[in-house]
Amino acid sequence: MPARDIYHDALKNALLKDDWIITDDPLHIKWGLRDMYVDLGAKKLLAAQKAENKIAVEIKSFISPSEIQDFKEAVGSFVLYRAVMHRVEPERTLYLAVRDNIYNALFQEPIGTLLVESDNIYLIVFNVDEEEIVQWIP
Amino acid sequence: MPARDIYHDALKNALLKDDWIITDDPLHIKWGLRDMYVDLGAKKLLAAQKAENKIAVEIKSFISPSEIQDFKEAVGSFVLYRAVMHRVEPERTLYLAVRDNIYNALFQEPIGTLLVESDNIYLIVFNVDEEEIVQWIP
Repeated sequence: MPARDIYHDALKNALLKDDWIITDDPLHIKWGLRDMYVDLGAKKLLAAQKAENKIAVEIKSFISPSEIQDFKEAVGSFVLYRAVMHRVEPERTLYLAVRDNIYNALFQEPIGTLLVESDNIYLIVFNVDEEEIVQWIP
Repeated sequence: MPARDIYHDALKNALLKDDWIITDDPLHIKWGLRDMYVDLGAKKLLAAQKAENKIAVEIKSFISPSEIQDFKEAVGSFVLYRAVMHRVEPERTLYLAVRDNIYNALFQEPIGTLLVESDNIYLIVFNVDEEEIVQWIP
């Protein structure tokens, strides 16, 4: 099984444990001529507000030899999908999901904190072995 | 000679024809632990303002089989380098350089116009055969 699928399932299970309902696997979005597929769509009932919280999640494995190359691709996917999501389904929030070890390395060093701040990148940090969400940012 | 180099030289010649002085090939930028290399740095004297205009240019070939994959990588590079440039050399403007046929296809269809607008992507459109700049956006 490719590494990508392991992380995909681990994050899915982590979301389920956190009371999310997986609604789309993958989530199809379309803009103009282009069909795009974000890894997961999920929803959660917010009882207090009698409302539903909806998210889209793009999972990035960071398994290539170049962290900066992976980082560019992750940021590019996020920025592209976010722009489309704002138009087609503005009430759904897009997150980039990364493993906790990648977060602790790349996203907490200066280049990571700079990008997260300057371009408002929303993150889900998850642990693969425990299949648990460690942190939502913001 | 790889295609990347053909476009690199064509753009360089186009900038020279447009009275730019190439100052860096590539332009080295650093943030935290990370060294990054933007394809070109250039400057031009603005006689009227007695000032210098400085640019950094990242050239994207769009030669992979997936246009959307190339697009994500181009956007990711641009967003990353722009964030770093704002901090290390805020007076230098970053541009993404694309061939006119790529611009006319991808960047003028809805996904391209959406991204250029929503994420303020600055473009140089150039013609490879003529080695000329066709358009600056904005």
